[in-house]
Amino acid sequence: MASPTPLLKDELDIVIPTIRNLDFLEMWRPFFEPYHLIIVQDGDPSKTINVPQGFDYELYNRNDINRILGPKASCISFKDSACRCFGYMVSKKKYIYTIDDDCFVANDPTGKKINALEQHIKNLLCPSTPFFFNTLYEPYREGADFVRGYPFSLREGVPTAVSHGLWLNIPDYDAPTQLVKPLERNTRYVDAILTIPKGTLFPMCGMNLAFDRELIGPAMYFGLMGDGQPIGRYDDMWAGWCIKVICDHLGLGVKTGLPYIYHSKASNPFVNLRKEYKGIFWQEDIIPFFQNVVLSKEATTVQKCYIELAKEVKDKLSKIDPYFDKLADAMVTWIESWDELNPAGAGAGASAAANGKAKA
Amino acid sequence: MASPTPLLKDELDIVIPTIRNLDFLEMWRPFFEPYHLIIVQDGDPSKTINVPQGFDYELYNRNDINRILGPKASCISFKDSACRCFGYMVSKKKYIYTIDDDCFVANDPTGKKINALEQHIKNLLCPSTPFFFNTLYEPYREGADFVRGYPFSLREGVPTAVSHGLWLNIPDYDAPTQLVKPLERNTRYVDAILTIPKGTLFPMCGMNLAFDRELIGPAMYFGLMGDGQPIGRYDDMWAGWCIKVICDHLGLGVKTGLPYIYHSKASNPFVNLRKEYKGIFWQEDIIPFFQNVVLSKEATTVQKCYIELAKEVKDKLSKIDPYFDKLADAMVTWIESWDELNPAGAGAGASAAANGKAKA
Repeated sequence: MASPTPLLKDELDIVIPTIRNLDFLEMWRPFFEPYHLIIVQDGDPSKTINVPQGFDYELYNRNDINRILGPKASCISFKDSACRCFGYMVSKKKYIYTIDDDCFVANDPTGKKINALEQHIKNLLCPSTPFFFNTLYEPYREGADFVRGYPFSLREGVPTAVSHGLWLNIPDYDAPTQLVKPLERNTRYVDAILTIPKGTLFPMCGMNLAFDRELIGPAMYFGLMGDGQPIGRYDDMWAGWCIKVICDHLGLGVKTGLPYIYHSKASNPFVNLRKEYKGIFWQEDIIPFFQNVVLSKEATTVQKCYIELAKEVKDKLSKIDPYFDKLADAMVTWIESWDELNPAGAGAGASAAANGKAKA
Repeated sequence: MASPTPLLKDELDIVIPTIRNLDFLEMWRPFFEPYHLIIVQDGDPSKTINVPQGFDYELYNRNDINRILGPKASCISFKDSACRCFGYMVSKKKYIYTIDDDCFVANDPTGKKINALEQHIKNLLCPSTPFFFNTLYEPYREGADFVRGYPFSLREGVPTAVSHGLWLNIPDYDAPTQLVKPLERNTRYVDAILTIPKGTLFPMCGMNLAFDRELIGPAMYFGLMGDGQPIGRYDDMWAGWCIKVICDHLGLGVKTGLPYIYHSKASNPFVNLRKEYKGIFWQEDIIPFFQNVVLSKEATTVQKCYIELAKEVKDKLSKIDPYFDKLADAMVTWIESWDELNPAGAGAGASAAANGKAKA
């Protein structure tokens, strides 16, 4: 087994929504133990999560979120793993890795256990190349480079804000595809990392995702899902559309591909269908909206971009459903809360403005 | 070894520039023998190429090109493998596969010989998805699909016009990279095919390339290279920029990834540098040109698109160098020649308007 990466110990937090399965942490122990965990409990605050000995963690439940954010806590989803984004907000680190508790350590084709976190860090520390496609994929990897015809002026690349990892075993399918292909498993290990080109949207999955909080954190809002909301399972998608548009506007990169995790079990497709079906209709309008939205020249920070985007959502998407009016307001509340907990000048390493319930 | 694919025997021509190495054909015999070959000889017409027994082929040398095209033969490069595009023009088949004579059969990671042609045909027969990125790559492959969040309205895809294959062993690097990394070999087999998103340009390599002649043929012009020209090794790049802009405009797809061939030897980096150095400067202006060029609504056929593009090249690129003025004229001549040899209504399967020197 690979030894825990020594990289960025003090610069990265691992954010996990409710851990229902403690095998999860045991399996990841060699890789996660050196890092600080932020656990955000999505359901009943009276239930306790017994984190095994040796992990450095803080845990937030709904009562903590309400206490810390006050009335602004309305922007954080309840009874849905979308609540994890609260963890992004209270972290003071430069990098975030978020993972679901049904995602286990995968093996590469040689049988070696994959240190997903180490690969994400590599992805984030390497530039991205969103302006031109490199046919040999990630040009900065060992044994690869830019191919003939790649403009030299673009070879420095741009900073990478997001690293989107993939899943072996259970693929991340929507409910209709799950219902049609209940037995499909992803067994194809594609040994590639690539930059998603500028102007192209993608379906960002929150199962195995890392990002640079300083570069893109305030846009990584997982929306309003779960209890009291008409939609679920679009939390990460929403964040993905928003971050991509903002990264494109600010000249930041988004990578996808390696690392893989092993996704152990499929969620219930019937439950998923109930959560998703409105999203399946709505996304047909939402995606053209994101493909066409234009941010102004004045939008020079992530916060400014996000506030502009919230206004556009209110103007252009509220006609689909009153939900988007509420969501646009929540986007603004999210930024206000972010800025309260992360006052200007307090970068990574600043002392936490809010403290969680438990610290090991 | 895989048996020759029975697919599209009568619908595909293999176009090869001068064959200097007859081992090449022996190695490909199991895969190529069922198909018709068009060999375009780039140098001295008095030299003879001895094609081994059993291959069905026609061979064109410079004298043939001059005879068939008359004064319009000026649009076909001399003493450069860019002359291969003459083969695209005289073919009457629906599909073209073109390959260089230093490209051998590669093995997949299990050691099985890769039938590159079969994979290209699969790529061309499967739709493309240029409007949204699928994180599990080609959604139509066995064991894969569209992931959660992929808009259902986009899942039918669009017709695929081009399939760009890759290379193991010697990567397709420019002269400066060859000089800096003389020992670099590509050993990474990436088991992926993907659609290059709409609006994104890529460096198209002509070593291992297939396309649908009916959909994009008239745009597959390899420009003016070699004898009497100030530039070389940008023939396929030029075609790649043109076809991508036109595919984007017409709603057609371009795929890259599998299949791999084994690229046996690197060309001389010093010779390459002499051919390339102007292109290295020029592409810094050419790429923004192609990124920003807009074709009109009236450009509804490949020919019309290409003529508009030629006009834009003349207007916008001639200021870089008088070469582009000549190239723009050659682009128009190419289309005129194409239309003469491929009169409207004469689709795939129509009898050849021009016959080559030899037919086996």
